[in-house]
Amino acid sequence: MTSSGAPRIPVLAVVGVGLIGGSFAAALRQAGVAQRVLGVGRHRDALTRALSLGLVDEITSLEQAAAKADLILLATPVGSMAGILSEIRPVLREGALITDAGSTKGGLVAAAARALGPRIGQYVPAHPIAGGEQAGPEAAQASLFRGRHVVLTPTALTDAGAIVRITRVWEACGAHVMQMTPEAHDRVLASVSHLPHFLSSVFMWQIAMAEDSDLRLTLAGTGFRDVTRIAAGSSEVWRDIFLANRDAVLHELDALRDALDQAQQALQAGDGEALRNFLERAAVARRFWGSRSGFDD
Amino acid sequence: MTSSGAPRIPVLAVVGVGLIGGSFAAALRQAGVAQRVLGVGRHRDALTRALSLGLVDEITSLEQAAAKADLILLATPVGSMAGILSEIRPVLREGALITDAGSTKGGLVAAAARALGPRIGQYVPAHPIAGGEQAGPEAAQASLFRGRHVVLTPTALTDAGAIVRITRVWEACGAHVMQMTPEAHDRVLASVSHLPHFLSSVFMWQIAMAEDSDLRLTLAGTGFRDVTRIAAGSSEVWRDIFLANRDAVLHELDALRDALDQAQQALQAGDGEALRNFLERAAVARRFWGSRSGFDD
Repeated sequence: MTSSGAPRIPVLAVVGVGLIGGSFAAALRQAGVAQRVLGVGRHRDALTRALSLGLVDEITSLEQAAAKADLILLATPVGSMAGILSEIRPVLREGALITDAGSTKGGLVAAAARALGPRIGQYVPAHPIAGGEQAGPEAAQASLFRGRHVVLTPTALTDAGAIVRITRVWEACGAHVMQMTPEAHDRVLASVSHLPHFLSSVFMWQIAMAEDSDLRLTLAGTGFRDVTRIAAGSSEVWRDIFLANRDAVLHELDALRDALDQAQQALQAGDGEALRNFLERAAVARRFWGSRSGFDD
Repeated sequence: MTSSGAPRIPVLAVVGVGLIGGSFAAALRQAGVAQRVLGVGRHRDALTRALSLGLVDEITSLEQAAAKADLILLATPVGSMAGILSEIRPVLREGALITDAGSTKGGLVAAAARALGPRIGQYVPAHPIAGGEQAGPEAAQASLFRGRHVVLTPTALTDAGAIVRITRVWEACGAHVMQMTPEAHDRVLASVSHLPHFLSSVFMWQIAMAEDSDLRLTLAGTGFRDVTRIAAGSSEVWRDIFLANRDAVLHELDALRDALDQAQQALQAGDGEALRNFLERAAVARRFWGSRSGFDD
């Protein structure tokens, strides 16, 4: 154990060395928790850059990394994680820990149980609520998780000691660690992450498909910029997220349509008082969140 | 005329000395176009700060300012502009020009014709597509309009010479000046400005009203931050905008619902290919806009 209570990780393997994977490696190295970092990934380019940035010490195959690692972080698209877990199962060391950074959990923990079989206890699913505009290893920073929430979604199959140790690891990155069921996590994330992305993309799509799309985009300003920023994200990553969390996203979409109906009725009726009330309620809530979350800084 | 072709403005009156009004004054002063700047407004505090920041040279009443000014900029909420035009009509100097920064135009130009009567020719309605997160005179900067679009929406009643001179004035601020009809302007802005604000506020409102609102907001991250940022805006300002441009906003809301239906059907059907196509189309369009508009810099 280090002085902070985090376990020492002689060998850390990071699968997917982008913003999240690279930041995790940097944070654990800075905290004195991780000694040696192995980088694994599909994108040779990103791996080479991560190596030259000093985020990882060595590039290895998945099998080699899993055979040596004391801790493995999966920071790849959620859709690829079950396959990765299946591959590493035969070589996984006893006492090694696995965590991940996937943004949906329900389908993943079910698939992980099948993929890992009797080793499932060693896997503590996690979702760090952190990110940024930039992707790739160049954007990685040791401070990315500082002050951010990380949600662990253990199940009855997860080893209790593993939960404690993974909690300490994420805390060593500076994060606040919470526990939720996979289902509760997915419901909440559908609301505050997946639905806004869906809305942003649909809105952007509608503009892109309009006949006078060019004129519209010429007159788009800062409000448009902010609302559509996340629509520029990876279509593969987000397709996977929406499919993985389909029911919860559809549920939130229905709730949003109800809210939209009410606001639209107020507008149709020219009811300025009702309009102002709803706008003010939203504005107050957003300002409070901005002042408290630290994300507006 | 100055060397840039912009008219000399011995006395500029700015009504509403916030981000837009203050930046207009700063830009025209820096360009050597405006000599003396009079500040007018309801908010004594903002006026005093604008004075101490050097954005305006003097605080005066609306009547005094209008009686002296060669150019008057209205940078107040759109809902207040017709009343202001009525008040200044009796004292307006012959040859004085009026422009504004209001974000809806159809209702405004109709009300302006009634308010100004025979002086309507001197008024050239304008909408600078510029702004930012910060409000108030402290946020004002001479460069705010540089490289930005300003839409003029003259009518058959607008004096042709006034259009030329106001074009030169906004160009002296560094802006690209376009002309559109008030109706076309309002349709396009409903799409790229008013609808995203409506969506952002409705989404924020839905979260704020949820039973587990606190938990949701605890797990909200950067995507949520971006999509909801504009929901923190003034409820009065946006109520006025939505009411002023009601029909066009409702029309865009219908178009968005159609797009939402299509995307939702793809999600419901678990059609990953259709989902990815729509997400990719949106992502490509957003990245292209970001690289071209300069708003992502």
